[in-house]
Amino acid sequence: MTMTAPGSAQADVTEGGPVPPNPARGLVCRNCGATFGLIAEHACAECFGPLEVDYDPEVMRAVTRQQIEAGPQNIWRYAALLPVGHDPADRVTLDPGMTPLVRADRLAAELGITGGLWVKDDSANPTHSFKDRVVSLAATAAKGFGYAKIACASTGNLANSVAAHAARMGLPSFVFVPSDLEPGKIVQSAVYGQALIAVDGSYDDVNRLTSELAETDEFEDTAFVNQNVRPYYAEGSKTMGYEIAEQLGWRIPAQVVIPMASGSLLTKVDKAWRELVAAGIVEDTGWKVFGAQSAGCDPIATAFDNGWDVVKPVKPTGIAKSLNIGNPADGPYALDAVRRTGGSVARVGDDEIVAGIRDLARTTGVFAETAGGVTTAVLRKLVEGGLLDPTLETVVLNTGEGLKTLDPLLDVVGPSHRVQPSLRSLREAGLIG
Amino acid sequence: MTMTAPGSAQADVTEGGPVPPNPARGLVCRNCGATFGLIAEHACAECFGPLEVDYDPEVMRAVTRQQIEAGPQNIWRYAALLPVGHDPADRVTLDPGMTPLVRADRLAAELGITGGLWVKDDSANPTHSFKDRVVSLAATAAKGFGYAKIACASTGNLANSVAAHAARMGLPSFVFVPSDLEPGKIVQSAVYGQALIAVDGSYDDVNRLTSELAETDEFEDTAFVNQNVRPYYAEGSKTMGYEIAEQLGWRIPAQVVIPMASGSLLTKVDKAWRELVAAGIVEDTGWKVFGAQSAGCDPIATAFDNGWDVVKPVKPTGIAKSLNIGNPADGPYALDAVRRTGGSVARVGDDEIVAGIRDLARTTGVFAETAGGVTTAVLRKLVEGGLLDPTLETVVLNTGEGLKTLDPLLDVVGPSHRVQPSLRSLREAGLIG
Repeated sequence: MTMTAPGSAQADVTEGGPVPPNPARGLVCRNCGATFGLIAEHACAECFGPLEVDYDPEVMRAVTRQQIEAGPQNIWRYAALLPVGHDPADRVTLDPGMTPLVRADRLAAELGITGGLWVKDDSANPTHSFKDRVVSLAATAAKGFGYAKIACASTGNLANSVAAHAARMGLPSFVFVPSDLEPGKIVQSAVYGQALIAVDGSYDDVNRLTSELAETDEFEDTAFVNQNVRPYYAEGSKTMGYEIAEQLGWRIPAQVVIPMASGSLLTKVDKAWRELVAAGIVEDTGWKVFGAQSAGCDPIATAFDNGWDVVKPVKPTGIAKSLNIGNPADGPYALDAVRRTGGSVARVGDDEIVAGIRDLARTTGVFAETAGGVTTAVLRKLVEGGLLDPTLETVVLNTGEGLKTLDPLLDVVGPSHRVQPSLRSLREAGLIG
Repeated sequence: MTMTAPGSAQADVTEGGPVPPNPARGLVCRNCGATFGLIAEHACAECFGPLEVDYDPEVMRAVTRQQIEAGPQNIWRYAALLPVGHDPADRVTLDPGMTPLVRADRLAAELGITGGLWVKDDSANPTHSFKDRVVSLAATAAKGFGYAKIACASTGNLANSVAAHAARMGLPSFVFVPSDLEPGKIVQSAVYGQALIAVDGSYDDVNRLTSELAETDEFEDTAFVNQNVRPYYAEGSKTMGYEIAEQLGWRIPAQVVIPMASGSLLTKVDKAWRELVAAGIVEDTGWKVFGAQSAGCDPIATAFDNGWDVVKPVKPTGIAKSLNIGNPADGPYALDAVRRTGGSVARVGDDEIVAGIRDLARTTGVFAETAGGVTTAVLRKLVEGGLLDPTLETVVLNTGEGLKTLDPLLDVVGPSHRVQPSLRSLREAGLIG
């Protein structure tokens, strides 16, 4: 589908102030460098490499801190650095973003980090994961391209976000999930009253089905958020990087620990900071990017350990389901960012992930899903292994909500005391003397 | 316990700007009008009536919109209108508040509301309920009074919030819950690694036990958030009212629908608006307050229907567990506010509550807990009954998160389609032609 570019520059003035010009000038293949217009394709017509949004550095250099700070308290304050949604009237969004950057002094003390530690907590987004950022960009691009419907295959966070965006906007959506998902997970997407198609098969089967479906006449008018509009979708992750820098007082942290599923989020946080430096919005103080995976799905960690440029697919297992992508599309680019910045990659097992969730909750009050347990446990491992410098400012990402992944905690977290309703029983339990 | 008043006026200047003077001048009995200093008591020494914070209207009149707007994006932007937490260094808080006010055009259209409809969505708070507002005030007051520990009896939202506040601050906390809570609910509080005491008894048994415990030597240094520091705790609910007015552009909505458990939240939203008017911050355009209860726990609705000034206790049943207070302490004051403003009270049954949750999710993308289903269903009932004027601006409150109350939806919400992983199966299901 090739249509009018979304979010083309306008001179209109809306209630939110002047509409900024679109800094995006086209798509570029990350493999061969071929360039395209702002089209609805995710693969290069020349080499099938992944397409990424290409920006005009001159347009970006015109963006100022003041302009951003005057914007709304959500991702759209960075509209002048994004490829879509410049005019508020064009946005299809739950207005995610500007999630808390929580100072984690107690966790820092336990880990021996003296340079300052923060948790970027994306469980505060409308559907409680960072996926709201990317879906807002994808859905807005879809509207700009003239698509009538949005869709995705997912087992969790992405499904919730797509259905909720569609519900708010009154846009039809089609979410495809494996039919053996836990009933609670089904409810979280089904409650929005959009089409939820349970497929008798694995997640890979579901993905294959949506790829075939995208080629049918009936779904020609459908934006599959991480397929045909993926270049726009992926740019939503940049906003997490922008926010961290702004919330630190327009400063880039020396070190950041980022979970890796497809690897896209890691590359986009790094890209966001390179853009801020290039645009003259922050100083280039240098930074190291650290990637976190679970031992049950560690293809990027394995490639890093072995010095490979390519990533060998694995069959995912383990409790960190939101990170279980065995064949990560952006793995090589994530490796590039880690190596270029002098960072590292580490993996942690399921027991460490549970401990990571508990450590984070116990010391910060942030209740993370398993992916946040992965980054917290990897942070500990990196410090203990001497790979992360404890004297430098560090940010660890939590991308989702603990209420969505209660199961791994059911057997290990419980009451500290059990008593009868009497002071005598409290005395016997040692709670009073 | 009578100690130094918390948050006494200071002239220091911190990083957040000048510390505002404390507008609170004491506590006043809502029953007999007796006045007290800013002490840690919740019942009048004269008549056992409930104590409430009393403010100096002169100090409040000095507060300006500009001063508030220059504050942080959380409840503390209203510090100059609160009894504690004026100096950021004194706060014990997860920084809740400034939750989204979501424009609900699609729900308005379904209900025939033409004057504008918004949902104030407190599921966006750190532990995903409005309780973070009150616990932040209570914990800050506790610190000011010199208490060493915080505690509560709860079956859900309050327990989560107390444990998370304590975890972030490294403050010991004691949360008492009935031992037969669902395992998922136990995990949500236990994950913070604080003392969680499971009591073999009903919620009433747990409450009685904490009242006895508060009298013991070992717990003399403990603030029970909704007992000895209740006057400060309750003021946290005012911030929901302040935010609604500010987010509407410093305007009070003509109508608001508020869930009632103890009735405190309703009285405090009304109080917040009276204060804003008295301080000259908003115009007095009048407003009507509507109270929402479930049919399983409707003592305030029954009193309203019968024209009673007192509320007759009931034994709560039904799915709206966070509203199930059978003997609501602030019921008479909630009735006063409803009657004074010309509002009304309505109740809805469990099926209507589930329908309310689904209506809200389907039309706004906001996934509410059962209490939000109550307010949404009551809104519908009030419009259909001609008690709420559809031509006037209306706000409906959602006080909590749907992920915390999945159970009532498990049997009624599910996939719209079930298919095999093939285009043929999608065709048979009518998804493609």
